[in-house]
Amino acid sequence: MGNALENLQEHFRKIHRLTHLAAMGQWDQAAMMPPGGNQARSEALAELAVIIHREKTHSHVGEWLDEADSDAADADSKASLREMRRVWQQATVIPEALVQAKSLAGSACEHAWRTQRKENDWQGFAVNLEAVVKLSREEAQIRAESMNCSPYDALLDLYEPGMSIAELDRIFADVKSWLPSLIQTVCEQQKQDAVLTPKGPFAIEKQAALGRKIMTLLGFDFDHGRLDVSVHPFCGGVPEDVRITTRYNEDDFTQALMGIIHETGHARYEQNRPAAMLGLPVSESRSMGIHESQSLFFEMQLGRSPAFLSLIAPWIVESLALGDDPALELDNLCRIYDRVSPGFIRVDADEVTYPAHIILRYEIERDLVEGRIEVADIPALWDEKMQASLGLNTQGNYRDGCMQDIHWTDGSFGYFPSYTLGAMVAAQLFSALRKEQPDVDAQIRAGNLQGIFDWLRNGIWQQGSRLETDALIQSATGETLNPAYFRQHLEQRYLKGA
Amino acid sequence: MGNALENLQEHFRKIHRLTHLAAMGQWDQAAMMPPGGNQARSEALAELAVIIHREKTHSHVGEWLDEADSDAADADSKASLREMRRVWQQATVIPEALVQAKSLAGSACEHAWRTQRKENDWQGFAVNLEAVVKLSREEAQIRAESMNCSPYDALLDLYEPGMSIAELDRIFADVKSWLPSLIQTVCEQQKQDAVLTPKGPFAIEKQAALGRKIMTLLGFDFDHGRLDVSVHPFCGGVPEDVRITTRYNEDDFTQALMGIIHETGHARYEQNRPAAMLGLPVSESRSMGIHESQSLFFEMQLGRSPAFLSLIAPWIVESLALGDDPALELDNLCRIYDRVSPGFIRVDADEVTYPAHIILRYEIERDLVEGRIEVADIPALWDEKMQASLGLNTQGNYRDGCMQDIHWTDGSFGYFPSYTLGAMVAAQLFSALRKEQPDVDAQIRAGNLQGIFDWLRNGIWQQGSRLETDALIQSATGETLNPAYFRQHLEQRYLKGA
Repeated sequence: MGNALENLQEHFRKIHRLTHLAAMGQWDQAAMMPPGGNQARSEALAELAVIIHREKTHSHVGEWLDEADSDAADADSKASLREMRRVWQQATVIPEALVQAKSLAGSACEHAWRTQRKENDWQGFAVNLEAVVKLSREEAQIRAESMNCSPYDALLDLYEPGMSIAELDRIFADVKSWLPSLIQTVCEQQKQDAVLTPKGPFAIEKQAALGRKIMTLLGFDFDHGRLDVSVHPFCGGVPEDVRITTRYNEDDFTQALMGIIHETGHARYEQNRPAAMLGLPVSESRSMGIHESQSLFFEMQLGRSPAFLSLIAPWIVESLALGDDPALELDNLCRIYDRVSPGFIRVDADEVTYPAHIILRYEIERDLVEGRIEVADIPALWDEKMQASLGLNTQGNYRDGCMQDIHWTDGSFGYFPSYTLGAMVAAQLFSALRKEQPDVDAQIRAGNLQGIFDWLRNGIWQQGSRLETDALIQSATGETLNPAYFRQHLEQRYLKGA
Repeated sequence: MGNALENLQEHFRKIHRLTHLAAMGQWDQAAMMPPGGNQARSEALAELAVIIHREKTHSHVGEWLDEADSDAADADSKASLREMRRVWQQATVIPEALVQAKSLAGSACEHAWRTQRKENDWQGFAVNLEAVVKLSREEAQIRAESMNCSPYDALLDLYEPGMSIAELDRIFADVKSWLPSLIQTVCEQQKQDAVLTPKGPFAIEKQAALGRKIMTLLGFDFDHGRLDVSVHPFCGGVPEDVRITTRYNEDDFTQALMGIIHETGHARYEQNRPAAMLGLPVSESRSMGIHESQSLFFEMQLGRSPAFLSLIAPWIVESLALGDDPALELDNLCRIYDRVSPGFIRVDADEVTYPAHIILRYEIERDLVEGRIEVADIPALWDEKMQASLGLNTQGNYRDGCMQDIHWTDGSFGYFPSYTLGAMVAAQLFSALRKEQPDVDAQIRAGNLQGIFDWLRNGIWQQGSRLETDALIQSATGETLNPAYFRQHLEQRYLKGA
């Protein structure tokens, strides 16, 4: 055995090796597994999760952490130790009985939700959700006490280390002050645009080939990853072998294509985390928000930009067009990809209305975890907030309202803000990049993306979790999180004459 | 906690859940993984193997086994306990240092072999193989002492519980007494046959669709399994989700097709092991030989029979033919599938010459493990035996001689006999089936295979490891292993006028 720091490193690398098989088991479950394999797979993953949890909370780890401070001489070692302590603390503070109870209640709630959502059965769902909320409050309370913060702050910290209610309230209050009128103006302006729909069908193999071609353009390393199909697109696997998925529609190629670009952003972050540190918590992505900033940088900042669309428009025609189709001309393609339209469903939302969906969920889950409201209050609050932010009536429509997302079913309270934080960081990053590389649009048009990727690699991907979130954003962009860039981006892209 | 037997059951089910993820990780490695993921995957699988080994050898298991005899009231419980003891004994008797040394030497030898084989580098290979043999002898010695048998017997027991040198010497001496002249006569007779080669190319998607259609005919449950592609076809996964693979050749559909039928035999055994006992060692397949008996029953007894070929010949034409092709007429198809031709390579051998390849390997590995010969003696022995059994000269051609197989590189001595034992059991099973169902050929011609599968399900699949091998064969066929049925099968199918 080496010194305490070395022992910790070997121990966390061992956890990383086990996590590898869990990640692949999950990817396979979503992308490959026949339905009849589900129960055995779920049991296998649960068994491995128990072993991984046991390794994270092993008594050695606490002892080594106590001893290791003196072994950590340089900044990287100190950061490594800080992140190991974070993992250990988060895993150790919750009693195993609560972990298990939460897992059982979450599985039961999620499983029933799949049917209840279809049947619009809020009453049935509410019973299960109450059980999940009760346990999440218990968890939040325990975490809050150990961190000396409020319960929802403690859950936020699982996804966004360092983020707080105070900060989110400030950021989202700002967004709420300008977003509704922006949405209204943009929708008003877009009313006059005629948007043509490309004529399919678009064969799935051709869509996949186009997707792979664009992934290659975007630097995806196919020696360390794959593209496959799943019902809910995601980026999974391990940094050494990143698995992204999409979902094809023969009648409409536009969503799968942009979905691939989005997941490729996640994938490049994963494929380019610091190699020498892989397996150690300090090599992990900084936060869910920073992860989302990479997918949204790829999708929203780069992928939907007129420059990028002008680059790939000929590829689309070449790969997919069945003949001359005016809907595939650049102008129309841009109109397809910057269409703003308030709707019920978050995952279908455009980037302008998306924050409204997030803020609504944030406000509800914050108050739910903090004990200011109860499960029974959710539908009325949902209706009221949807009406106020997007002018939509969801009364009685639980299916497309408060029952649409999977996140609450297993108690992932605190996750939703990451989506909008990611969008903000993406806008801030692109703005900083443009300052350093003023010809970025010309580079994109020419298909020369290396400068962009080098910048992201140095600024974000290779950092892992060495820097804390504020310091990371500061180091990459020259300032800490500033939502003004997001507003600026939306106004410049979507407001005519802006 | 329950009684000792219940504790053992829960413990082995836990091991089964972990083994699930190892099996899927291995399948993915062969069928899905991009090359760059290999190192991380190998490390992950090795880490899980350590954990599984630790669970198998946990001190509780030994204590529970000591206590459990009084809990095992019925025959099934007694068999269950016997098989748990077997797993535990096999895992516990070998010191961890030897397990690790063997794994390292095996990996190194196998890795180098992939290049050395291509380069025909026997000298380089021999150095690594000597290290593997040394450790295998050590392992065999330890196992032999604990089982009170000879070293090679102890290794045989890992694959064929209850099998011995004495029994194999007897069986193979019989085969050697009639096989060379049978091969000679068949080759002589077949000289006059003109065999036409079907005209391709045969699109891979079409071959795969035909393969799936035939898997469906053969009862493969696609709700609990998949067909994919890998370089070396195999049957993997778990009983709840069986993954078989094949390898397509656009110019020749015949091998992939028969390969799919072969792997489907393995798959149906796996998919139909006793459901209520899954996870317990007693639910496992009885032995490697019995497993191979199922794949060879499907491929050799059923799949290559004229009755079965007459059933699928129209499907082949419908799925693959590019026009009228006389090569796809039934008579020619039968000639393709019963062609006998002595060759260097075991995996390409027909069912008549195959036993010669096995007996040669058996005699060499038996004497090697027993210490009667050394690694340096292998090439000369190989040449001599190939000359005697198949009339082929392999002098200096190590690549297509003693370096062609992967089995010895990681020390899997004792495995080879299973192939021929499986062929013998398959013939004996089919003969017994025919006695009970004299109209079996008519059933096959009519595509009515249910009677065959029900018979195999009751006789073999649902038995798991409840019965020991002799008892299983006896119970299914009315007598213990009798190689006469194999000889009879070969003579009836291959000797004209027999």
